[in-house]
Amino acid sequence: MSDRESLKRIAGGTARWQAQLPTDVPGRETDARIPVAPLYTPADTAGIDYETALGWPGEYPFTRGPYPTMYRGRLWTMRQYAGYGTAEEANRRFRYLLEQGNGGLSVAFDLPTQMGYDSDHPLSRGEVGRVGVAIDTLADMEILFDGIPLDKVSTSMTINAPAAVLLAMYIAVARRQGVNPASLSGTVQNDILKEYLARGTYIFPPRPSLRLVVDVFAYCHRHVPRWNVISISGYHIREAGSDAVQEVAFTLANGIAYVTEAVRRGLDVDAFGPRLSFFFNAHMNLFEEAAKFRAARRLWAEIMRERFKARDPRSWALRFHTQTAGSALTAQQPELNAVRVAYQALAAVLGGTQSLHTNAWDEALALPSEQSSRIALRTQQILAHETGVADVIDPLGGSYFVESLTESIYRRAREYIRRIDAMGGAVRAIELRFMQREIEESAYRQQQQVESGQRVVVGVNRYQEPGGQQPRILRVDDALERRQVERLSRIRRHRDGEQVRSALERLREAAEGDDNLMPYLIDAVERYASIGEICGVLREVFGEYREGDHP
Amino acid sequence: MSDRESLKRIAGGTARWQAQLPTDVPGRETDARIPVAPLYTPADTAGIDYETALGWPGEYPFTRGPYPTMYRGRLWTMRQYAGYGTAEEANRRFRYLLEQGNGGLSVAFDLPTQMGYDSDHPLSRGEVGRVGVAIDTLADMEILFDGIPLDKVSTSMTINAPAAVLLAMYIAVARRQGVNPASLSGTVQNDILKEYLARGTYIFPPRPSLRLVVDVFAYCHRHVPRWNVISISGYHIREAGSDAVQEVAFTLANGIAYVTEAVRRGLDVDAFGPRLSFFFNAHMNLFEEAAKFRAARRLWAEIMRERFKARDPRSWALRFHTQTAGSALTAQQPELNAVRVAYQALAAVLGGTQSLHTNAWDEALALPSEQSSRIALRTQQILAHETGVADVIDPLGGSYFVESLTESIYRRAREYIRRIDAMGGAVRAIELRFMQREIEESAYRQQQQVESGQRVVVGVNRYQEPGGQQPRILRVDDALERRQVERLSRIRRHRDGEQVRSALERLREAAEGDDNLMPYLIDAVERYASIGEICGVLREVFGEYREGDHP
Repeated sequence: MSDRESLKRIAGGTARWQAQLPTDVPGRETDARIPVAPLYTPADTAGIDYETALGWPGEYPFTRGPYPTMYRGRLWTMRQYAGYGTAEEANRRFRYLLEQGNGGLSVAFDLPTQMGYDSDHPLSRGEVGRVGVAIDTLADMEILFDGIPLDKVSTSMTINAPAAVLLAMYIAVARRQGVNPASLSGTVQNDILKEYLARGTYIFPPRPSLRLVVDVFAYCHRHVPRWNVISISGYHIREAGSDAVQEVAFTLANGIAYVTEAVRRGLDVDAFGPRLSFFFNAHMNLFEEAAKFRAARRLWAEIMRERFKARDPRSWALRFHTQTAGSALTAQQPELNAVRVAYQALAAVLGGTQSLHTNAWDEALALPSEQSSRIALRTQQILAHETGVADVIDPLGGSYFVESLTESIYRRAREYIRRIDAMGGAVRAIELRFMQREIEESAYRQQQQVESGQRVVVGVNRYQEPGGQQPRILRVDDALERRQVERLSRIRRHRDGEQVRSALERLREAAEGDDNLMPYLIDAVERYASIGEICGVLREVFGEYREGDHP
Repeated sequence: MSDRESLKRIAGGTARWQAQLPTDVPGRETDARIPVAPLYTPADTAGIDYETALGWPGEYPFTRGPYPTMYRGRLWTMRQYAGYGTAEEANRRFRYLLEQGNGGLSVAFDLPTQMGYDSDHPLSRGEVGRVGVAIDTLADMEILFDGIPLDKVSTSMTINAPAAVLLAMYIAVARRQGVNPASLSGTVQNDILKEYLARGTYIFPPRPSLRLVVDVFAYCHRHVPRWNVISISGYHIREAGSDAVQEVAFTLANGIAYVTEAVRRGLDVDAFGPRLSFFFNAHMNLFEEAAKFRAARRLWAEIMRERFKARDPRSWALRFHTQTAGSALTAQQPELNAVRVAYQALAAVLGGTQSLHTNAWDEALALPSEQSSRIALRTQQILAHETGVADVIDPLGGSYFVESLTESIYRRAREYIRRIDAMGGAVRAIELRFMQREIEESAYRQQQQVESGQRVVVGVNRYQEPGGQQPRILRVDDALERRQVERLSRIRRHRDGEQVRSALERLREAAEGDDNLMPYLIDAVERYASIGEICGVLREVFGEYREGDHP
């Protein structure tokens, strides 16, 4: 389209065009404060070399997609996060979603489970089954997946500090179904670093936490080879108020920390590299979001190949799940959230996501209803089947604007990573609160922009409705907690207490040493040791982390 | 980005990449049957010269936009079509929309008004106020715009066969408000040719109809210079089942017929060229739709400059209103239509529309409710303020895929126009039923694709809900028709019948001659002659058209 001669003419043409614009055309920037010119032309992408910066889908640097055929081969997985209340309730929802054509399951756990407490722990009071399903023992997990053949589904479990424990339970359920763990597929979030950064559901200090993460890598490599051993998450970093560049940079910096630790433990980078996966946010700024995914792929490929010397191309390819931005939804005029989610989902698909959760429009107010969940899933189906956007791989590729944005995000994220490297890596940067401060500043700035009206949020600071709607609060049944606690005590009464004690003792000894803890965890959960008992043992060995433990 | 040497390497790289794809990757095409490759690279756009095919916004060939600053200067007008029931009801809706930040009014008329019949005509029975507001005399128009200063709003009137009569009434209302017609702004659809093609609300034969159209051109040029004298409509052509290429081709072919007639009547092409505007559909295929708008601008610019020798660049620039595709909405799971509309609206904005009507999600079932109308408008506001897509002019520009599509649509539409030219132009092609047949074939093919399941429509031929929802029918009050008929007879009793008769007589004489009819129409409506009386006189002079009048 444009050799050197014509590029010069185009640059000249743009200068001439720009000269006759009124001088009061307001400036613009993206959400990540990347300046946005009114117009982009070939002159803006002249410095971007197609072969090295974009390449071909399924090939280094994977800017255009991690797989050669992308959605022409297979659509993204429509994976709706679900699983609140009890295991029975979540099981019913899973079966409903499977019937609706939902290609993957996604489990949310309640806060006690995420923190490694049993439902009868004093700190669990009022939280049992509130933001996800309550899992105390293998018995709950058996109910959760009752009637769902684990070799036929792909399950994503959003769990971090006790990720290894929940994965152990999943493997145990598979065994009881007669399913070979080697045929399991899915993902466990297992990304502890972002918890110190953004979400706060950590248990142990960073270093033993890293050990557990890498135990999962090593175990799955041998026994559950199709499992995605981690979902390195920018989602929560973004929800906490970071911008798109920080989301990419901090997520990849955490990824670098995991890979570094695994390599230090003697794992071959190509043994686990292909099973790493990522989890990103799809926010409102359509082109910046799409560009973000492209930039993240390019940067990760470079990190894996150049820094870690991975040789397997599958280790270079960044694959990711996306969830639409909960933080962009509004309690005011909540039905408009369906429109926001539609645009966010599009950004994820234009960015080449491997799977996608679309939020329900009433998620800002309450747990989603069946109607709102259906709209959320159908949004993905409309996107897939009616809009044609899945017909072409990386349809935005070549857009002067999108390529410029991709390049900017790539460069800015790379610079952040350089700074984090200079501090000694992500763990140290977390301890120094560097990333936390950056996120807080970004969140504060965005809040200011909304308050000043500079950033318009429809229905919130403009186009409000007088009166508005009362948020409908969908409360979790108090009886749920009682029933869950009763089930746990029933399990405690009926299990073989001696076997539990000895399994926990073996776990303690292993934790004090260097062994991979996964076989010990599987042993313990199969004897119906509870998550609180297991994490209790690990708490005693590893200690607990509190913010401020480090300078 | 790519000189000749690197283009060769890229083409080679793509061939190598393609060779390793599985052979069973299914083929794809756009809605307009343009083949879609899995991937587009710089090699696909190498033949498109930036300066001649794209250029700069506000400059020939206007591919990137009709104005230099586009949305950076001013957002598109959010113009929600409304106006059902009586004039009072429509007036209330207008005031509501104005309060909601709706920047432009849009009037729909009922079928009797569109066909030039009074509300008490036997053929009007059951249709009064059903699909739009009923206008019999100037009295209705006065109520419709009561309290709305016509120099402060921009009004779009969807009226064709009797367009000149309604415009005459609008001018008369302005005069009574003390508003100089020179300060009026808005659009009258006034596009009779597409009525023979797709919609069927014609009255007179094509040639006297063309005369009325051009009378509006000539009158407005002198007296209402800011008025858009026609909205040449692809919308209905598309709704009738055409594809995107046919929509562009047949709309521009009709445009050519109007310009040809106006020039034949002695008007300078640059006297009315800048006041021509277009009206397109925004359908589901996101990139094809966005490319369609870009291609239409380029092709029209070429037609105006090269064929009609227009010298004023404003005559070259195609400006258009867009409405989202009503035909793409479904009665099944109708709440999903809000998602469809969101994507359609995005296509219009990415294509650089000047104004936009977003359909309400329940429009496939009934007249839109206040809630669904609000969601429709808010969708545009979210698009404008939250997604960032309005921050950059033509953000898709340069995309290998979108540029390829734009080029294909441009070429295919140009070829259609060549064929229509060869038949003797659009009027003759209509008489030969060429365009009608092409549209019918396209509609039939699409219907077949839906029936065979090749084209998935979510909720219709896949992902259906058992049971589903009962369409809610919002019936128009029967009393409305009675009240409207009463008002008309009251007007008839109180007006000066002798003045009406003599005004109608002067109109008849003018119609039999060559005079511009606009002053006679204004004279007649100011004396409260009804639309039925006025069109009755013209029917007697011009005759009526029936399909099949021509071979």
